Amino acid sequence: MSEFAAVDVIRAKRDGGRLTDEQIDWTIDAYTRGDIAEEQMAALAMAIFLRGMDSGETARWTGAMISSGEHLDLKVSRPTIDKHSTGGVGDKITLPLAPLVAACGAAVPQLSGRGLGHTGGTLDKLESIPGWRAALSTSEIIRQLDEVGAVVCAATSGLAPADKKLYALRDVTSTVESIPLIASSIMSKKIAEGSAGLVLDVKTGSGAFMKTLPQARELARTLVEIGTAHGVATTALITDMNVPLGYAVGNAIEVAESVEVLRGGGPADVVELTVALAREMLALAGLSDVDPAAVLASGRAYETWCRMIAAQGGDPEAALPRPQHVHVVKAPADGVLSSLDAYSVGVAAWRLGAGRARKEDPVQAAAGVLCLAKPGDEVAAGQPLLELHTDTPDAVPAALAALTDAYVVSSSKAPASASLVLETVRPS
Amino acid sequence: MSEFAAVDVIRAKRDGGRLTDEQIDWTIDAYTRGDIAEEQMAALAMAIFLRGMDSGETARWTGAMISSGEHLDLKVSRPTIDKHSTGGVGDKITLPLAPLVAACGAAVPQLSGRGLGHTGGTLDKLESIPGWRAALSTSEIIRQLDEVGAVVCAATSGLAPADKKLYALRDVTSTVESIPLIASSIMSKKIAEGSAGLVLDVKTGSGAFMKTLPQARELARTLVEIGTAHGVATTALITDMNVPLGYAVGNAIEVAESVEVLRGGGPADVVELTVALAREMLALAGLSDVDPAAVLASGRAYETWCRMIAAQGGDPEAALPRPQHVHVVKAPADGVLSSLDAYSVGVAAWRLGAGRARKEDPVQAAAGVLCLAKPGDEVAAGQPLLELHTDTPDAVPAALAALTDAYVVSSSKAPASASLVLETVRPS
Repeated sequence: MSEFAAVDVIRAKRDGGRLTDEQIDWTIDAYTRGDIAEEQMAALAMAIFLRGMDSGETARWTGAMISSGEHLDLKVSRPTIDKHSTGGVGDKITLPLAPLVAACGAAVPQLSGRGLGHTGGTLDKLESIPGWRAALSTSEIIRQLDEVGAVVCAATSGLAPADKKLYALRDVTSTVESIPLIASSIMSKKIAEGSAGLVLDVKTGSGAFMKTLPQARELARTLVEIGTAHGVATTALITDMNVPLGYAVGNAIEVAESVEVLRGGGPADVVELTVALAREMLALAGLSDVDPAAVLASGRAYETWCRMIAAQGGDPEAALPRPQHVHVVKAPADGVLSSLDAYSVGVAAWRLGAGRARKEDPVQAAAGVLCLAKPGDEVAAGQPLLELHTDTPDAVPAALAALTDAYVVSSSKAPASASLVLETVRPS
Repeated sequence: MSEFAAVDVIRAKRDGGRLTDEQIDWTIDAYTRGDIAEEQMAALAMAIFLRGMDSGETARWTGAMISSGEHLDLKVSRPTIDKHSTGGVGDKITLPLAPLVAACGAAVPQLSGRGLGHTGGTLDKLESIPGWRAALSTSEIIRQLDEVGAVVCAATSGLAPADKKLYALRDVTSTVESIPLIASSIMSKKIAEGSAGLVLDVKTGSGAFMKTLPQARELARTLVEIGTAHGVATTALITDMNVPLGYAVGNAIEVAESVEVLRGGGPADVVELTVALAREMLALAGLSDVDPAAVLASGRAYETWCRMIAAQGGDPEAALPRPQHVHVVKAPADGVLSSLDAYSVGVAAWRLGAGRARKEDPVQAAAGVLCLAKPGDEVAAGQPLLELHTDTPDAVPAALAALTDAYVVSSSKAPASASLVLETVRPS
């Protein structure tokens, strides 16, 4: 077929029509092969952005992107269960969660990405551990799942190549924030990874991509519908991302905080969300009789963590990198810390070197922001509130600028914080 | 500036915002230089298609496209006046009109295009005259305007290069039928040609791009607003294009029909529209005391035609090419021809070889459709209704297929046809 067909597909969506299964299959295949030009896909992406796709179109679009590449076949003895977060500030949950769920009896294949913008990347965090490597072959992944039960590694390049191409295009054409396109991008990669079940952590709030609860709800519903349509048991938790998760935002400092959690301590919010996600994952894996809180307290999750890190060349006992420069931000007055804005803290950590503006950029292992108080805590004037960590002190003024309106110290007591998990979305 | 700025421009329009003058100027300039990629302009074009541009944005967009190239400076002794048609079937009006208005005392610089799809192109028609050439230099155009008063030639390549690039992109991305984009494309070329006044023939009906009167009215209003914003005296006539203009649809046969009109005969509708457009052009040129109907009857317009053709190497007395094959379509019954569909006849002529599907394709000088009756005419069963002319008889079945529902012979008398000119749009 020639480009006449591409023009017809674009026109149909432009005019508010529904794309047929055949049109979707042909479009994704032709785009992957280069028979649909980038400018044609850009026009189609904008038409989809403005006209939408219904759940049937979105599920088919996802399926076509899965078919554009390999499908991992994870033949392991335990039930496989995966988790994906839409991205937040201080979101190190994968680090304690994967070994915890493995210690409970499931296999957790966690193929992850790197950070971009104000949200961190799981691989960037783990790479602050001396010796640890992200790249594994498929046979290494399967062996580690069998032996350890958990693997966190880089996605292999053959998964959903159509999504890779389309994601890069959307980035330069302002067609990123479309729920059908976001959802099909996430799910095409996750379904191609071959896990039998999937729990989604859809974040909402200032530090999330979905700023409002209705947007998060629509994304969660769309993700669950796609998973269900493709035979993957899928549940989504909608969770709050107005405040950073835990105290640490960065790379090495998030690893250290995750180890605290695995050793039975750590911040209450990180523990709460880790256990909540573990319960959902174990339920989908048919292991709902295991109590993840008890396993976490027992130290078995930490043992699995050590084996998981060592299996990928890392030394779980090694000292983590420390920053060359620390700048302290102090409380301006006596009172209660009534807010701490996740987005501002995320941008500050990014500017200090923890994140990257372009995907080719390196990150600093030791950079980030350590929060010394969380909303609801009483503070005294002059008491340290935030530590800015960096190897490049020139970056401090830009980080401070991002933090101008990041926190409020007020005289009245803040209300006790509600649960992090706002809603649970299951297949209807 | 980098592509970050392009992303911001696309996002602003995507979200229904208004583009600033600076954004528009930068966008057109960066696109012309290649700093905005084709896929970015495709996304922006789709956002403009679906979100629109207001009259201020459209005028500025036009101005930026004019500034992307040369501006012709037509220093001639007579007042210059130009005409543009949005394209129809059998629309040979430029051929009698340019010499008529020149014979009335104005200078008519008619930089024209070639046909694409079911509408013919003025240059394709004139190239059926032995020896005639379309390509003239700027100095040849000015000399011919001074000496003859009329020139019909190919647009020089330096005019509005941004429009050329954008037009090709819109063609493959289904972003053609957007009134702000159509209007800015037409007006950028026409204003860059440097004429002091412009009359637009905005066609509406089955054979036109604007199928309905409201669409045609919006396009006409937009065109007049752009011309006025750029200091060009502009009027638009909205004219009927449900029935082919005249009897001849093709290339050489349209030249022959135009010569009949210039010699004082020819179809009534072609004469009516030629004189109506001439009156508007003369009014804008400050020559409203000249009666174009009288000049046409006097033979002076025909004399100017002969000089205009000869000045570009053509022989106005030479025999025109004849088709190698003629297929006759006969009336199916006694009665009155109650309709003759312009679009169907246009497609038939195109398939017979008079038009082209891609801009690289050649056209046949002798191909086309000769209508032997027009709506309102009485016909007898078996009487020839249409002649299909072609050098490639294999094309006849496809042409006949296009004509399946093209004409109706009914027993009742059709109402007398109304005026071709439906409305006149002037600056408010």
